[in-house]
Amino acid sequence: MSDLVRFSISLEKALLEKLERLVKASRYTNRSEFIRDLIRERLVEQQWMDKRQEVVGTITMVYDHHARQLADKLVDIQHDHQQNVLATTHVHLSHDLCAEMIMARGSAPRIRQLADRLRQQRGVLHTTLAMSSTGESLS
Amino acid sequence: MSDLVRFSISLEKALLEKLERLVKASRYTNRSEFIRDLIRERLVEQQWMDKRQEVVGTITMVYDHHARQLADKLVDIQHDHQQNVLATTHVHLSHDLCAEMIMARGSAPRIRQLADRLRQQRGVLHTTLAMSSTGESLS
Amino acid sequence: MSDLVRFSISLEKALLEKLERLVKASRYTNRSEFIRDLIRERLVEQQWMDKRQEVVGTITMVYDHHARQLADKLVDIQHDHQQNVLATTHVHLSHDLCAEMIMARGSAPRIRQLADRLRQQRGVLHTTLAMSSTGESLS
Amino acid sequence: MSDLVRFSISLEKALLEKLERLVKASRYTNRSEFIRDLIRERLVEQQWMDKRQEVVGTITMVYDHHARQLADKLVDIQHDHQQNVLATTHVHLSHDLCAEMIMARGSAPRIRQLADRLRQQRGVLHTTLAMSSTGESLS
Repeated sequence: MSDLVRFSISLEKALLEKLERLVKASRYTNRSEFIRDLIRERLVEQQWMDKRQEVVGTITMVYDHHARQLADKLVDIQHDHQQNVLATTHVHLSHDLCAEMIMARGSAPRIRQLADRLRQQRGVLHTTLAMSSTGESLS
Repeated sequence: MSDLVRFSISLEKALLEKLERLVKASRYTNRSEFIRDLIRERLVEQQWMDKRQEVVGTITMVYDHHARQLADKLVDIQHDHQQNVLATTHVHLSHDLCAEMIMARGSAPRIRQLADRLRQQRGVLHTTLAMSSTGESLS
Repeated sequence: MSDLVRFSISLEKALLEKLERLVKASRYTNRSEFIRDLIRERLVEQQWMDKRQEVVGTITMVYDHHARQLADKLVDIQHDHQQNVLATTHVHLSHDLCAEMIMARGSAPRIRQLADRLRQQRGVLHTTLAMSSTGESLS
Repeated sequence: MSDLVRFSISLEKALLEKLERLVKASRYTNRSEFIRDLIRERLVEQQWMDKRQEVVGTITMVYDHHARQLADKLVDIQHDHQQNVLATTHVHLSHDLCAEMIMARGSAPRIRQLADRLRQQRGVLHTTLAMSSTGESLS
């Protein structure tokens, strides 16, 4: 964790009161931490818009493992992106249904491509991509 | 505009540098204004989650005015919500197509209901709702 | 409105029941109209990702008209984008606060740029951009 | 996987052509699968708005493991929600930084609460929640 610096910002008095209420309602320990998180969220959004940056994303998919050769295809696709896949965890949701969460690292377009390929497979019922960060520029 | 107060926040040095770059890239005049905008955006999100608060929203819809009795229906629906509708502006997009933007004020569920009713009409091709604010708690 | 064609799709029986419930809850008159709207929403999302396409967007902003020279600046910015601005409607929200909704037509990056420039002005409390369409490819 | 049924929908001819292009560009094997996915995505959105439904969500967080007692706190919080946590996978991103993805099952408010508590901890740099499904109503 890098050194902390202090700087001051000016704010309308009424807006400061609103901010105080927001920090309290969100149960943050202090105002600085709340504002740091707002800044970090904006940074992550920016990183995902810039193709040259390396980001981290988590793909969650729900599928019916009885679908013909689906398990094989899903493994194949992940191997095509082995440079990007950091970890995959499989959860048994019911007799028929599985969920898998895949953490991937790479450029935003590359991670989106992986999510798209998984989504298109027959038997995959839902795929969603969460945008996160390598954390390098957040601390 | 209410009185300005100053307060200081602490930040990791590396994060401050990232913030500086973000402010510059977004062409904001200063850091305070950038952070105020982050706080205000969060406040507007909160207002839209709280049914008791009064918010402002803009509904944009695109429709084919040749659809049977559509213009009449759209006016009727807006009159049912006349307590909410502040202004409506109509734009002719092409020979067949119109766009309308409607600014509404009221509770979030009420404005969503208006947008939903407009969306369901046959001939309405696209409807979207932008979440804004009365500004009361933002300054 | 162009000619209607019919085509059939296959669906899991349980999913069809869920769809029926969704259509009913959303008060759509029929299933086709509901599915057409899902397709159109996806098309509009795609159009906003493609720089070469012409789209329509509505910018809503809330501002304090007492901010120094703000009204002049907002008009200037809109004139710089006069090729894009189709219509602007002004609403008086309170003694101090105004809302403006601006319908713009052009490429997605160009409309985003207009929204960004408006957002950066001191005294502008909130700016949001709703993504819509010229409707050309939706009917 | 439940039995397939067929039903037909009517569509404007021009819209069908746009749909064809969209299906092709997304590399789906067929139109039915594409439309099924649109319906399923809408269903998942609905499930997350209904407090009584059971959903699945994946929380991704990035944190600095040097932050004081952070690892302990993160484990404690997950144990408070042990009814909801299905699996947690930890990835080492760099010397200082970790990422964790947590798959949770329960009501939407309960999963959001878990994500909020994790986000508030000092040293947690970014937290994001992906909305998925138990799959029960999607097939």
